[in-house]
Amino acid sequence: MVSDLSSAVLLVIDMQEAFDHPRWGQRNNHEAESNVANLLAEWRRTRRPVIHIHHVNPKPDSLFNGKGVQVKPEAVPVEGEPVLTKNVNSAFIGTDLEERLKLMKASQLIVTGLSTDHCISTTARMAGNLGFDTFVVSDATATFERKGLSGQHYTAEEMHDTALMSLEGEFATIVSTKELIKPKAVS
Amino acid sequence: MVSDLSSAVLLVIDMQEAFDHPRWGQRNNHEAESNVANLLAEWRRTRRPVIHIHHVNPKPDSLFNGKGVQVKPEAVPVEGEPVLTKNVNSAFIGTDLEERLKLMKASQLIVTGLSTDHCISTTARMAGNLGFDTFVVSDATATFERKGLSGQHYTAEEMHDTALMSLEGEFATIVSTKELIKPKAVS
Repeated sequence: MVSDLSSAVLLVIDMQEAFDHPRWGQRNNHEAESNVANLLAEWRRTRRPVIHIHHVNPKPDSLFNGKGVQVKPEAVPVEGEPVLTKNVNSAFIGTDLEERLKLMKASQLIVTGLSTDHCISTTARMAGNLGFDTFVVSDATATFERKGLSGQHYTAEEMHDTALMSLEGEFATIVSTKELIKPKAVS
Repeated sequence: MVSDLSSAVLLVIDMQEAFDHPRWGQRNNHEAESNVANLLAEWRRTRRPVIHIHHVNPKPDSLFNGKGVQVKPEAVPVEGEPVLTKNVNSAFIGTDLEERLKLMKASQLIVTGLSTDHCISTTARMAGNLGFDTFVVSDATATFERKGLSGQHYTAEEMHDTALMSLEGEFATIVSTKELIKPKAVS
């Protein structure tokens, strides 16, 4: 079981329709959206802080311009939840996320959203290196297959696993949604 | 062929003896050291800027404390080459690297050193996100095998390849040592 997370901040990153585009190729973990929804419900129920990060790219041909920036239904912010906009991978670059977390005296971050080896990995690496106690939720993120420069092909699951293995113990602790949602007391 | 790199800065990251410790497990690309040495020789010959980054960890049980911080013979700095010390993975966190590069009006960075999926990947991600035109030299870096949380095992070569594939096109351009060393004119 993970340590006490009673004041941990839930970061929900790039849960946007741009990631439904076929250009990305095969994806793993289609449960990521419902796991993010469950974590959001749990954080709201326990009145813990949530911060949403959305990607917007000013280039007209970007998938993150126009319709693609729309937030997936499982991750729509509610009143009072801050929404920060970024235009690179790291949620800490070009935003006030670090200052905001310091003002909140936040020390623990739970990182969720898309995609594992791009924005999630980059944000978790910076979070860890900036001194936050960082947790990445393995089943509340997902990524895509990639083709290598020498013709190698790695599946989405392989890209996801290796990205998480590079984070574990060095930048973050890898956890599952189940570990973060305590069973509700019978009423 | 890559674009004109006549004023590109060569970053040489964590080329230190700590990485020879057996604790890391099996490593790929044992040519990384000689490729870094060849790139350093080429950068010095063409009088282009070199910046060394060394890792030092204040914890007494760290491999990067004591003897392990010693620089590998292939990457020993020469007079006039700045040496920055960091104690996290990113060469941009806790150092003046970004300010220094801006003062130099540097726009292109060549990233080399150890290890592919930890300090090299983290530094290249931040470099790309901070707006630098970033190149990672695939055969002038290396990494180690890793064991996953669910018992998966990935070889050092698989960890290296997937780390580079996650960088390519999103944060950096992946190049080889050979592409960066132009054949010398016959004298």
